Amino acid sequence: MRAVCVIGLGLIGGSVLRAARAAGWDGWGATASAEDGAAARADGFAIESTVDAALTRAAREDALVVLAVPLPAVAAVLGRVAALAPGCLLTDVVSVKGPVLADVRRILPGTRYAGGHPMAGAAVSGWAAGSALLFERASWVVTVEPDTDLDTWRAVAGLALDCAARVVPASAAEHDAAVARVSHLPHVLAAVLAGTGADGGPLALALAAGSFTDGTRVAGSRAELVLAMCEGNRDRLLAAVDDALGRLGVARGALASTGSLRATVTSGNAGRAALDAVRGGERTPTKIDLTGPDVRAELAAVGRQGGWVVGFEADAALVELPKAAPRALT
Amino acid sequence: MRAVCVIGLGLIGGSVLRAARAAGWDGWGATASAEDGAAARADGFAIESTVDAALTRAAREDALVVLAVPLPAVAAVLGRVAALAPGCLLTDVVSVKGPVLADVRRILPGTRYAGGHPMAGAAVSGWAAGSALLFERASWVVTVEPDTDLDTWRAVAGLALDCAARVVPASAAEHDAAVARVSHLPHVLAAVLAGTGADGGPLALALAAGSFTDGTRVAGSRAELVLAMCEGNRDRLLAAVDDALGRLGVARGALASTGSLRATVTSGNAGRAALDAVRGGERTPTKIDLTGPDVRAELAAVGRQGGWVVGFEADAALVELPKAAPRALT
Repeated sequence: MRAVCVIGLGLIGGSVLRAARAAGWDGWGATASAEDGAAARADGFAIESTVDAALTRAAREDALVVLAVPLPAVAAVLGRVAALAPGCLLTDVVSVKGPVLADVRRILPGTRYAGGHPMAGAAVSGWAAGSALLFERASWVVTVEPDTDLDTWRAVAGLALDCAARVVPASAAEHDAAVARVSHLPHVLAAVLAGTGADGGPLALALAAGSFTDGTRVAGSRAELVLAMCEGNRDRLLAAVDDALGRLGVARGALASTGSLRATVTSGNAGRAALDAVRGGERTPTKIDLTGPDVRAELAAVGRQGGWVVGFEADAALVELPKAAPRALT
Repeated sequence: MRAVCVIGLGLIGGSVLRAARAAGWDGWGATASAEDGAAARADGFAIESTVDAALTRAAREDALVVLAVPLPAVAAVLGRVAALAPGCLLTDVVSVKGPVLADVRRILPGTRYAGGHPMAGAAVSGWAAGSALLFERASWVVTVEPDTDLDTWRAVAGLALDCAARVVPASAAEHDAAVARVSHLPHVLAAVLAGTGADGGPLALALAAGSFTDGTRVAGSRAELVLAMCEGNRDRLLAAVDDALGRLGVARGALASTGSLRATVTSGNAGRAALDAVRGGERTPTKIDLTGPDVRAELAAVGRQGGWVVGFEADAALVELPKAAPRALT
């Protein structure tokens, strides 16, 4: 079994190291945070004293290297990987994938890389907040591009599956467009709603009930985390904000002209029903032959249909597809 | 003790009748829904066979009449009140207050009326969904205008307190502006978010996590309930939507030009902190002399500060004001 080398031991990196070890992987980590490093060591994990030492060991033991540092730190760490462990399989757990892919292509051209993004998190951060169970039943995107090395993809997907996640294959571009809509836009709208409500003064806040509480919950998240996530996906988020602005403008126009919000409310009902269908609906098991000529496109199509990989069997990926896709794919 | 006559036995009306009886009030109801009427009778409540019969009894027993019918039915029922029980104290539990006040002034000029709005509800409706505990610790607006009869206001507030709610005094106009921001706008934004997310296709929905789930929860509400609520408060909701459009446009512009969402996220943080302060912060008890010359204005100021009335004592209202009002009143 391959070992795992985790660079960055915050909430996500620390949870990856814990979950991988719980699943039987050998592994070690390194972090620029003295606090996280000491806490991880105190919990009995092998923590190298520097990132360079961890990467040198990764090269020696042919480990899978996992970058779990914030986006602005990725390029610098990739430089160290290029210097010390250029032959290792590589992944990351950063919440945007296009910018990381661009950095990898620039700094480590030709390296065996498949990006990752576990859709799990919390309002908290740091090693102490992590858990070996953080990824249980979570979606974990593993990126697949036309030139992705399949052995690397399978190794990264294997780590995610061992962490108890479901693997969603997607290109970096498709991932970034999707999370702009369902992860970054919700933070922007929550902030807008919280600000608009608070401008109604204490009376409005005293009358706020469940709809406002739910709609503003993530507006209470730590600003630095939200900004790093949203601003790192700027172009895709702009497109999602424009879509929301268009819809809100249509609602405004309809309410002003005809007094009716029916189209808006009906579309919201349908969207929520589609969420429930993808999330809780029945699924059809199927297999994808990993030796086929179009396997990368087939994997990406699985993700595009709301499907996920739940395991491997010889040369096949075991896939679950939603039985009733909520709307046709375009 | 005065009796209560509840017209309309859906979720709210049915819960008022249950809670009032549990608190020791004599009471009866009537409804246009044969199903709700039969269910209420089966639960042991006194249900008159027609609205006219219930109002005739209200006039005979000098009951407090509670209108718990949808906004479009209010004018017709007020016509029956004018014909059969014009001398009774009157309130309502409709979710917008300006249109009801206008109907009352038109159809029953000079009647002793104080509007009401208990901020409690659910995605469900009908007698069967009600509960005597629905209003526990909920805010229940009782409207106060410059010409509100104080004995009526106190009787209506007394009913709300006996239902275990906190009484928030506010003018109809201030109420409608406040709920547009914290109750109606959240439904519009949830619909916009659900639609924008679903347009990302099954991949986006498969990647949706807590922020999207929370932000779209009320998009799953029954469309007819949401439309009645939002469209009945059209002008105030338009103002709130315009505020949200402005804020979202500013966020869009900042992201496009500077790449920063800091102002948006900071304002969302502050709004959410203000909500927590009004809701969970310490409160200062005080009293308002109900025989003073400016008592109506003083009551409205209590609501405007995020305060509420928690009881009565001889000629005084017992009030709790937030210790640290989150922002100055303008």
